[in-house]
Amino acid sequence: MTPSFELRLRAVALDTYRERVVVVHRHCPVFSVEGFQSLARLDVRAAGRRLSAVLVIADDTALVQPEEIGLSPASLAVLGAQVGDPVEVWPSTPIRSLGAVRRKIAGEVLSASDFMDIVGEIVAGQYSRTELAAFVVACGMDGLDREEVVHLTHAMASHGKSLSWDRAPVVDKHCIGGIPGNRTSMIVVPIVAAHGLCMPKTSSRAITSPAGTADTMECLARVDLDLDTMRRVIQQQNACIVWGGAMNLSPADDILISVERPLALDAEGQMVASILSKKVSAGSSHVLLDIPVGPTAKVRTRQRAQALRRLFRYVAGRMGLTLEVTLTDGTQPVGRGVGPALEARDVLQVLACDGHAPPDLREKALALAGRVLEFDPDVDWGDGYDLARSILESGRASASMDALRDAQGRREPPAPAALMHEICAPRDGVIRALDNYAVARIARLAGAPLVRSAGVDVLVRSGDRVTAGEPVLRIHAERGVDLQFAVEYGEGHPDAVVVG
Amino acid sequence: MTPSFELRLRAVALDTYRERVVVVHRHCPVFSVEGFQSLARLDVRAAGRRLSAVLVIADDTALVQPEEIGLSPASLAVLGAQVGDPVEVWPSTPIRSLGAVRRKIAGEVLSASDFMDIVGEIVAGQYSRTELAAFVVACGMDGLDREEVVHLTHAMASHGKSLSWDRAPVVDKHCIGGIPGNRTSMIVVPIVAAHGLCMPKTSSRAITSPAGTADTMECLARVDLDLDTMRRVIQQQNACIVWGGAMNLSPADDILISVERPLALDAEGQMVASILSKKVSAGSSHVLLDIPVGPTAKVRTRQRAQALRRLFRYVAGRMGLTLEVTLTDGTQPVGRGVGPALEARDVLQVLACDGHAPPDLREKALALAGRVLEFDPDVDWGDGYDLARSILESGRASASMDALRDAQGRREPPAPAALMHEICAPRDGVIRALDNYAVARIARLAGAPLVRSAGVDVLVRSGDRVTAGEPVLRIHAERGVDLQFAVEYGEGHPDAVVVG
Repeated sequence: MTPSFELRLRAVALDTYRERVVVVHRHCPVFSVEGFQSLARLDVRAAGRRLSAVLVIADDTALVQPEEIGLSPASLAVLGAQVGDPVEVWPSTPIRSLGAVRRKIAGEVLSASDFMDIVGEIVAGQYSRTELAAFVVACGMDGLDREEVVHLTHAMASHGKSLSWDRAPVVDKHCIGGIPGNRTSMIVVPIVAAHGLCMPKTSSRAITSPAGTADTMECLARVDLDLDTMRRVIQQQNACIVWGGAMNLSPADDILISVERPLALDAEGQMVASILSKKVSAGSSHVLLDIPVGPTAKVRTRQRAQALRRLFRYVAGRMGLTLEVTLTDGTQPVGRGVGPALEARDVLQVLACDGHAPPDLREKALALAGRVLEFDPDVDWGDGYDLARSILESGRASASMDALRDAQGRREPPAPAALMHEICAPRDGVIRALDNYAVARIARLAGAPLVRSAGVDVLVRSGDRVTAGEPVLRIHAERGVDLQFAVEYGEGHPDAVVVG
Repeated sequence: MTPSFELRLRAVALDTYRERVVVVHRHCPVFSVEGFQSLARLDVRAAGRRLSAVLVIADDTALVQPEEIGLSPASLAVLGAQVGDPVEVWPSTPIRSLGAVRRKIAGEVLSASDFMDIVGEIVAGQYSRTELAAFVVACGMDGLDREEVVHLTHAMASHGKSLSWDRAPVVDKHCIGGIPGNRTSMIVVPIVAAHGLCMPKTSSRAITSPAGTADTMECLARVDLDLDTMRRVIQQQNACIVWGGAMNLSPADDILISVERPLALDAEGQMVASILSKKVSAGSSHVLLDIPVGPTAKVRTRQRAQALRRLFRYVAGRMGLTLEVTLTDGTQPVGRGVGPALEARDVLQVLACDGHAPPDLREKALALAGRVLEFDPDVDWGDGYDLARSILESGRASASMDALRDAQGRREPPAPAALMHEICAPRDGVIRALDNYAVARIARLAGAPLVRSAGVDVLVRSGDRVTAGEPVLRIHAERGVDLQFAVEYGEGHPDAVVVG
């Protein structure tokens, strides 16, 4: 009994954001498409390899013919198959590790090998978004106990690339995020590099925020370096500021984020595993972690921040990392610009000791740089801040950034986008509060981070006195539609900047 | 500032199984597609209406042109818009009730109005699969407390159509599922109808099983009746056996199932809400619930069955339903055939008092029918079984089914599919166990339920003595590929029928 498979592969150029799909025509002559539908997932076998994908049924022969099986170009590459190759489609083998996810849902504590299995199958692209959401929610509920966070961190670090450096200490600085404009790394790194410490900074692009450090640095230099180039830059400059995505340090994290963000879930255990797995993989030995605290920050109370600090320290210790945690002011945006080019402008002003530089960004960056410098055994505790300031004020940090930009591949930042709209204070009064989330959302709607020159300039700070009609936010956009989205949201959310 | 929207609607014939998608070309000239990607969801506005859909990015102008926005024909219908209509695309308003889902994830007890909000937005098609999975998992973890199950049941029943009948009692019988071949309703209904009780049976089609009652009944008569026809049938025959899907009794349930099944989650609270919301909406006053118990059934221990029974009774009481729960033998399939036509054959044999009829199916149906008959205040407790048997043996049940088939629109069942393969005992011995799940899977792979004539005949029962080479399962399929899938699975899973 050897049935004749007559199905052929076809490329279908759909991007479903990290969920593999297979497109099958409803009238596929070989099997009952609808019968498989509730299975949700199929195995596609071609060229001797196999991949699992979520079924999408097409009713249009322009997408796929009945005797065709459609895969995205990325999936074709995974299979190592070509358009037109013969292909078999099978009911998928159930994901092995889903049993562990179900045990987690049922409230069990999972083992190290459970997490290795789950993360392995996630990285292999076996999980659909439905299954990813189940795992994320199950881990987010009662949360993971601290041993489980260690296991998850270890599993995530194990399933990515590991970097190693022949210097010590290898320092890093990381913020848990959520504060617009908080672009301190781009000031800390040149200060620390000028001092001579090794700081290979791998940073992220924005996911739901208006700019990541990688997006902002990309306004000044290339950030998509390969590992060899990155090593050469570090050898010359002690440091680099590159996009970590190309390094594949924690591929599981990149996938999990695709469901955590739409759900607006930010479970502590997963946050700790996500951050520390990347630090371990990046070969850091000493890490300074910035946890901003404020009513519209990720961490809203000092009590929660302290609990989170304890968890970070415990897991870091188990992973062999030296970790310092600093709780900072997260009540409002930091700096002036929100959006890659606007933030790059602020960073360059601080490095140039320009009188227009936002003082809060300068002060926060100096405080953090000081703590990082104290990882140097030759720097006494308490001396870091003054050392950082002298490096900045002497122009050495600015020179270090210049050299870094040249080494990575210099770029000149774009001017702020030309279309502008100012949101103004509705009355005389004092700025009572700024909402980090609303400011970020406005910048995002204006086009940031993809439109590098778009975003928001935050023109006031809490406690500032303003008069009616005085601009408090300046929106920059390149396209009318983007500007309209941003203005409509900004005008509709007076809580973005509260004048009391 | 009035930007010119130049986007036009296009139909994209994709069926993503209850998740609305909007297909946008990567180089859409109007906004930054990738900027929206992590938002996962967009609002599409056209013809004065709005719908929310998950973003799929296309890189191929054969799918959508850059200035086009692709929606499925079903989504176009929801919008009331036509291909070519102008369309606006906006960042989506966050789902309002997702806050309640996040509170549930955090372990809070939700209120009646939380459940109304969540179910309302689910029914409105606002939830993506990721968000549905989050809700389902959050409810499945610590579980819902019994008041929450009442709230969920009420919300689900409120968001569907309600039927009402001018007779009393209105009886029903329902099995929680999981046992292949367990087609007792099609015997119970004609017995009860012949006795004169009103039993408007709305049944389901298979989702992950090889046959639902609606699929099997469809081999004998039409089941897709509209409400008027259904009422006329009941007036004439006291009963009907129709597909409930067309009645829209609990649309939320149909949607939730699309994520529960791939996750193989069957949380008790959700099961109770799902079943009882449909009974309430169908206008039943008295319900007999069958909970099969066995190692490969949905409920594996008697203890769990008893807890589930208590929960069912409590919620039914709060919803004003009279509910009897019976725990039955769920250790193996019931009857012989598994698959619509094979099960219809068994049912007709039982009704005809044919000597070849599977005795276990007959006995189980008589026991259940007896209990349902006892809902009649004129039938004494304990007399139901004998009454049911006399109705069956007198031929009145068979005549009732005949009349029901004529009234609904008679169909003649197809013969079992011609392609066959027998799985045989590997050695002499005694049948130690049958695996409900594996038998169902084989029947499903053979093509059931979509291929009505496909499925499996289970030729042995636990305790039977067999000799090596004696057939234990007979697979029927119409297509070679289906047969190969089923045989490969069956031969690879000797636990389907264990010979010890």
